[in-house]
Amino acid sequence: MQLARQLDKLGTETAFAVSAAAAAWAAQGHKVYPFHLGDINLPTPANIVQAMNKAIADGYTGYCAGAGIAPLRAVLADDVGSKRGVQYSAENVSVQPGGKPVIGKFIAAVMDPGDEVLYPNPGYPIYESQIEYQGGVAVPYGYVETSTGFALDMDAVRASITPRTKAILYNNYQNPLGAQSSRAEMEAVAELALANDLWLLSDDAYYEMRYSGEPLSIVNLPGMQERTVILYTCSKRFAMTGWRLGAAIGPKEVIDVFNKLNTNAESCTTHFIQHAVVEAIPGDTSGPDAILSTLRARRDAAVAGLNAIDGISIAAPQSTFYLFPNVSQIMQRKGLTDINDLMRGALEQTGVSFCTRKHFGRSLPGKENHFIRLAYSGIETPDIEEGLRRLKGYFEEA
Amino acid sequence: MQLARQLDKLGTETAFAVSAAAAAWAAQGHKVYPFHLGDINLPTPANIVQAMNKAIADGYTGYCAGAGIAPLRAVLADDVGSKRGVQYSAENVSVQPGGKPVIGKFIAAVMDPGDEVLYPNPGYPIYESQIEYQGGVAVPYGYVETSTGFALDMDAVRASITPRTKAILYNNYQNPLGAQSSRAEMEAVAELALANDLWLLSDDAYYEMRYSGEPLSIVNLPGMQERTVILYTCSKRFAMTGWRLGAAIGPKEVIDVFNKLNTNAESCTTHFIQHAVVEAIPGDTSGPDAILSTLRARRDAAVAGLNAIDGISIAAPQSTFYLFPNVSQIMQRKGLTDINDLMRGALEQTGVSFCTRKHFGRSLPGKENHFIRLAYSGIETPDIEEGLRRLKGYFEEA
Repeated sequence: MQLARQLDKLGTETAFAVSAAAAAWAAQGHKVYPFHLGDINLPTPANIVQAMNKAIADGYTGYCAGAGIAPLRAVLADDVGSKRGVQYSAENVSVQPGGKPVIGKFIAAVMDPGDEVLYPNPGYPIYESQIEYQGGVAVPYGYVETSTGFALDMDAVRASITPRTKAILYNNYQNPLGAQSSRAEMEAVAELALANDLWLLSDDAYYEMRYSGEPLSIVNLPGMQERTVILYTCSKRFAMTGWRLGAAIGPKEVIDVFNKLNTNAESCTTHFIQHAVVEAIPGDTSGPDAILSTLRARRDAAVAGLNAIDGISIAAPQSTFYLFPNVSQIMQRKGLTDINDLMRGALEQTGVSFCTRKHFGRSLPGKENHFIRLAYSGIETPDIEEGLRRLKGYFEEA
Repeated sequence: MQLARQLDKLGTETAFAVSAAAAAWAAQGHKVYPFHLGDINLPTPANIVQAMNKAIADGYTGYCAGAGIAPLRAVLADDVGSKRGVQYSAENVSVQPGGKPVIGKFIAAVMDPGDEVLYPNPGYPIYESQIEYQGGVAVPYGYVETSTGFALDMDAVRASITPRTKAILYNNYQNPLGAQSSRAEMEAVAELALANDLWLLSDDAYYEMRYSGEPLSIVNLPGMQERTVILYTCSKRFAMTGWRLGAAIGPKEVIDVFNKLNTNAESCTTHFIQHAVVEAIPGDTSGPDAILSTLRARRDAAVAGLNAIDGISIAAPQSTFYLFPNVSQIMQRKGLTDINDLMRGALEQTGVSFCTRKHFGRSLPGKENHFIRLAYSGIETPDIEEGLRRLKGYFEEA
């Protein structure tokens, strides 16, 4: 009895190894500063829990439609559309058990084996894994450092398009970089998609996790709504990562495919949680506002703590809850060449746990890997300050 | 922009069209007797809701491991193993968002494109859809009527095995037939799996929905535990269909694959619901006992109501909540040849809504299709009695 051969192409999130190392270190009695976690250690707003319990009391504990309940599809169509300046209706929405399922189902919906799909690298590692597992060719595109953060390497994106390119995965408000596109950059991406007749996945997981400015969505650009599927999730805005509720929003012909995949994969998303979110999305914003405000304070503390380290200089990202500092000078000063040594040293010398560039897609030739990723969503401000003071001590040692 | 070609092979649950027709008929002001629903219209036991709220209050609203939380994996290993007379440990358990995901992930784990997989027909329609969508050859095996219900057509099963056969899907306590294997039949299935070195999926969705007798599991037969993955679900026993909690239980090497597929597909199953089920499974059984007792009373009413119809004779199944009467004599009396006409006529003349054999896998050559499926899980006993009295009137008309 053999397992399926295609499993050789299935990737994973290697960052779980970082969590395991941090947990093992803590289990030995050490204090750990958990900057590796892409999770939120804040409670879900109470009105959502109340609405969920009302839905259970009202009897919504049985199956619902694979596409999701009609009122949630309508609420999401209104909310996602109005926040992006476009019109959607309920038939454009397929409810999902989280944002992540949208990635695999989008690829299943638009990609044939052998097709090429462009994806951001560094980026969320499941992009690369799902493209290759489903028999496609994962073509990475990179970023360049700027004075304010990171920008798409547009020349490289253009150069990587071939007649086999079928789709592009685009993650504005980006994990792990914290990058966001200028209007010009977004227009350049849209132009490429239009000129090459590509499908586009707009991973909007962090669309509402912004600390300043007005958002900009690629679906708002001419010709893009009919070729774009939006990945939506409740995870970040409402601190609902463990609840598993998200959606795909896009052209009806693709959303119909998502719904059919739902029927085959998991029947439906948890019924009463859908009712809770019908309340939450157009409802009281004090819960999500407080979450964003807490995260902003943490960001400011984390950026200040990093910039206090000799050899690190980082601009404050205006979205996400990630920081991606270049640590090349630190590596040089310490005489290190393998970023894993810096990661391990930091944990053992200071208790500070973080991910590195290696956890966000395979390394690209010619690109150096001397970046680390710190998340501030799972750690309180006093621990951010204390942890980064300790990290400064270790990073500044020769 | 084209959609993926492989989608041509993706099936669905055509029974949703029956629900839609029933809903449309009800919307016109008619009373509907919903025998088509494979859902349970009973509340989830209150202790589970309480345990879930405690878990939320305790802060279990963030991500958990893709494999599921350790205490739930341990509880399921104990419970599923002890009820089948075998030993499992936590590493043999992968928590899933329902029982259904186990089907697609099992096929992904063991089947290569071109491999043949045997599946029951009539049977749950997602088997056929997932095998073909993932590039395999879906090879149906059938059942024969007996004095007590249905038995596997073992000669046909044996004859359908080829060198390309990779796995067999086996659904004891079967949907839609309500059939259950004798020990001899189960041993014959096991013998085939062993002789041909097959993987086996044991779809145990109804393993605990039994009205008499001791259960029998194929994993208990020699040589079977190491080649079998059990599909487990909380949906039926705890009336939790809409909660979406299930698990795959099997050899560690396959369960590791399930866990990696989880990380790629949906991150994790709803965190706090897992904690609720840790309480429920070894806890107070009065909730599930009451559910089973209600269903038994409904079964008795439904079997009596059907047997009161001239031309129908059905034994009371000892498991599931389905009845699958042969309606050939009814069809003949009414001069009908298409079962869809009987289904539509029954709805419009009596309000009784049911599925037919056609909703449970593609029709097999040489097998007649004059069976209907009635579920009694979503309809109260007085409505069962009244609905079947009305159905008797329609069925007995020439």
